[in-house]
Amino acid sequence: MGIVLAELAKQLGAQLRGDSSVEITGLAAPERAGPQDLSFVANRKYLKALNIARPGALLISPRDLPHFDGNALIVANPHVAFAHAAGLLFPPATRPQGVHASAFVDTMAKVDPSAWVGPLAVVEANARIEADAYIGPGCYVGENVRIGKRTRLVERVSVLQDCILGEDCIVWPGAVIGSDGFGYARDGARWVKVPQVGRVVIGRDVEIGSNTTIDRGAIDDTLIGDGVKIDNLVQVAHNVQIGENTAIAGCVGIAGSAVIGKRCALGGQVGVAGHLQITDDVTVLGTSLVASSITEPGVYSSSIKAEPVDLWRRNAVRLRKLGDLAERLRRLEKQIKEITGEDSR
Amino acid sequence: MGIVLAELAKQLGAQLRGDSSVEITGLAAPERAGPQDLSFVANRKYLKALNIARPGALLISPRDLPHFDGNALIVANPHVAFAHAAGLLFPPATRPQGVHASAFVDTMAKVDPSAWVGPLAVVEANARIEADAYIGPGCYVGENVRIGKRTRLVERVSVLQDCILGEDCIVWPGAVIGSDGFGYARDGARWVKVPQVGRVVIGRDVEIGSNTTIDRGAIDDTLIGDGVKIDNLVQVAHNVQIGENTAIAGCVGIAGSAVIGKRCALGGQVGVAGHLQITDDVTVLGTSLVASSITEPGVYSSSIKAEPVDLWRRNAVRLRKLGDLAERLRRLEKQIKEITGEDSR
Amino acid sequence: MGIVLAELAKQLGAQLRGDSSVEITGLAAPERAGPQDLSFVANRKYLKALNIARPGALLISPRDLPHFDGNALIVANPHVAFAHAAGLLFPPATRPQGVHASAFVDTMAKVDPSAWVGPLAVVEANARIEADAYIGPGCYVGENVRIGKRTRLVERVSVLQDCILGEDCIVWPGAVIGSDGFGYARDGARWVKVPQVGRVVIGRDVEIGSNTTIDRGAIDDTLIGDGVKIDNLVQVAHNVQIGENTAIAGCVGIAGSAVIGKRCALGGQVGVAGHLQITDDVTVLGTSLVASSITEPGVYSSSIKAEPVDLWRRNAVRLRKLGDLAERLRRLEKQIKEITGEDSR
Repeated sequence: MGIVLAELAKQLGAQLRGDSSVEITGLAAPERAGPQDLSFVANRKYLKALNIARPGALLISPRDLPHFDGNALIVANPHVAFAHAAGLLFPPATRPQGVHASAFVDTMAKVDPSAWVGPLAVVEANARIEADAYIGPGCYVGENVRIGKRTRLVERVSVLQDCILGEDCIVWPGAVIGSDGFGYARDGARWVKVPQVGRVVIGRDVEIGSNTTIDRGAIDDTLIGDGVKIDNLVQVAHNVQIGENTAIAGCVGIAGSAVIGKRCALGGQVGVAGHLQITDDVTVLGTSLVASSITEPGVYSSSIKAEPVDLWRRNAVRLRKLGDLAERLRRLEKQIKEITGEDSR
Repeated sequence: MGIVLAELAKQLGAQLRGDSSVEITGLAAPERAGPQDLSFVANRKYLKALNIARPGALLISPRDLPHFDGNALIVANPHVAFAHAAGLLFPPATRPQGVHASAFVDTMAKVDPSAWVGPLAVVEANARIEADAYIGPGCYVGENVRIGKRTRLVERVSVLQDCILGEDCIVWPGAVIGSDGFGYARDGARWVKVPQVGRVVIGRDVEIGSNTTIDRGAIDDTLIGDGVKIDNLVQVAHNVQIGENTAIAGCVGIAGSAVIGKRCALGGQVGVAGHLQITDDVTVLGTSLVASSITEPGVYSSSIKAEPVDLWRRNAVRLRKLGDLAERLRRLEKQIKEITGEDSR
Repeated sequence: MGIVLAELAKQLGAQLRGDSSVEITGLAAPERAGPQDLSFVANRKYLKALNIARPGALLISPRDLPHFDGNALIVANPHVAFAHAAGLLFPPATRPQGVHASAFVDTMAKVDPSAWVGPLAVVEANARIEADAYIGPGCYVGENVRIGKRTRLVERVSVLQDCILGEDCIVWPGAVIGSDGFGYARDGARWVKVPQVGRVVIGRDVEIGSNTTIDRGAIDDTLIGDGVKIDNLVQVAHNVQIGENTAIAGCVGIAGSAVIGKRCALGGQVGVAGHLQITDDVTVLGTSLVASSITEPGVYSSSIKAEPVDLWRRNAVRLRKLGDLAERLRRLEKQIKEITGEDSR
């Protein structure tokens, strides 16, 4: 099921240079692309690889074109064009419609006839599954939940009562949307559970990774904006708000009531403390901790790179003795001042 | 289904000041509370918000009462009272009883007639589900497991063979209790699996978050004390012991055989190394690493706050050169001593 | 179902010293072992404990034997022998064969007659379940998946389409193998999803922990080598490669296209950045960050130990002012040079 290059150019709105009759059947990284593979170059440094491998066609920007002399599809943004081409070459399987015989759908649930509820899925009372939505095998859709048009719960996804997912979302296996927030009142030594009565409200075009957890709000709702992308094993606590088109990599933890702006990017394992605000267009590098509000766009980090353990341990010990170091420096400065009569600072 | 203020005061054992006929129908944060909402103030600084919003009633301590002139329910601990009030305003749904037709319950399992086993749940041989327990949709209860009275496995919870949960626990979707500990013996380059034959034994009034994992003991049991609260995506390794009323936030990892005391609090993403002890009443701030035993109660940290990346990188480079810095300081001290004849330290 | 010591020695290939008629019925840590328990000593320091407890028999190396005078099974590697003995004392339950009536197996799937598909499991079209494999309750096996001989999906495991697991693997509940990698092309403010068309290919004798996630490759495959052991709640991103016999502890996050060598060990919560290489025989201590390639075998760390919070905060503040400190030092050096006429460095 390949696509001839002329047709591919047309569908992508690309300018074609070279042999328009080549049939493209696969995708490959530039360094491994064969004569029927489509590849792309977003970074000029990969053009070197192309001197060795020879793709069937290359998605390339006008700027980089002079550096390549094979078949080229010329586009403004080769990475985006590659994403679209991949969708053409590997079209998603057609969605079935209806309810599988082994699913359990409450009689009070509303499932659009064009939607699908797969094997061993559960849909509770008053849930609403909209047109062309896909509820995969083993999914759980709680009471009063709304699943938007074309949204796809891949398999074994949990959406607990009252939560709302917009249109065109994808949620991967093991994700849990709407578990209770971690809210307790301290009563002496004991913790008294505070009922969590908010919801999770998710916009459109959101993707949520495997085994990610998003807690419902305590009183108000937890809010995930349109176009947000969340990777695997991310924890989103109660009453967090995430702005549009923000991307969150794997293993991130976001504490309660944090408000994250639009178009932010959080690297893997980042921690975000509770009750703070991150403005729009902030990037936080992997493993860093956001411990107070960030009010200026930009890139932030507190990540420390591993080193050979002996070297690291010596520095870690010195880190704990920085106070000593500073004090010794202060004394020296004082002595020098006594000698020279002038302030060294 | 609101509650008149007079009745609410009575049920909470609160002293009422103001209009006893107001009907309370919802909960709200102080800054957003409307005329039928109940709110609370645990922190005096929020009283400012109340000059703008006007709750139907406010749970407040006698100490803070003079700062507020609206309808007040006066209690010693407003946060705890709020937790109770939320339970009154949003009572949990009545639990069904019996076994859903689509559940698979082994003939050798014992399910109390007052308990519920939901759709597509599996209960294996010799498992015991006690009175008023709730086994939600898609849960798995292994052989010989015991689920205590009133304990609620919300949905799609796994409790593997031989594990024990006490009374009044709540476990959220995706939690796995009783998977094998990560135990191997090294045989040259290969790892030989060491069978894990202990259990997980969980006390009463414990809450376990979504996608949290608690491994069974290698030989002895993994032990979770009464009143422990564990958030989402927490890893508890084999033979860990967690003391009563300790609270553990999201994304924490606790390595094998760590022993954590009572009334401790571990912040989000904290790491606890294996084979160490943390005494009672220890708080560890988020993202910190407990790498050796802690013998004194108190607050501990090794968290580092993210900064603009250029600034951070300069400091991170210097951190790796602390040895140089210390050596340069030592030389200066020596020179000064030669000049002055006296020791600067 | 105990084993007499003479028989145990024979099966383990151990030399027996002491009472060969003792019946061993259990396992215990050295310090708690009773007269019918088998224990082992891999570390000489535990021999002290044995002066108090008295195991039914002790697995011990020839070197340590003189320090112990009870019943002994003498072996080269007591820990490995203990692993084997545990398997003899607690043999795995016999696997059932066939397909449970409540499972959903597509008519186009191939299930070997000696394999087992448990209650409420789903096996999709063209999946192949090989001889003696075990698909536990609630598992999901996608289209074209291959599950190797004797491999055991314990319960509620997801293996999505096209992925391959070798022989003798074990996968714990909640693990998700083959969800889409986190791949997007940036188009202005929006993220455009890049279809992920690679697979996850897993070797033989691999163990994968609860709620661990392994994403499929973007174009090429994600590769997990023979003998790899992965703990709970680990994230393995698209196109990662993990070499043979590498062990990865809980809560580790590995970013896309990282290549990890053979016989490596990653401690708990370690982060590995994307597009880098770690050579063979590298150990990374818990919570450290691998931010660039590691080309030399050895032990690496960037972990920082928690301290009392007041002490820590002072040092953290100084860490942010290391630039000042260095600048002050530089000035002093200059002044000294002016005084002494010689360079202090």
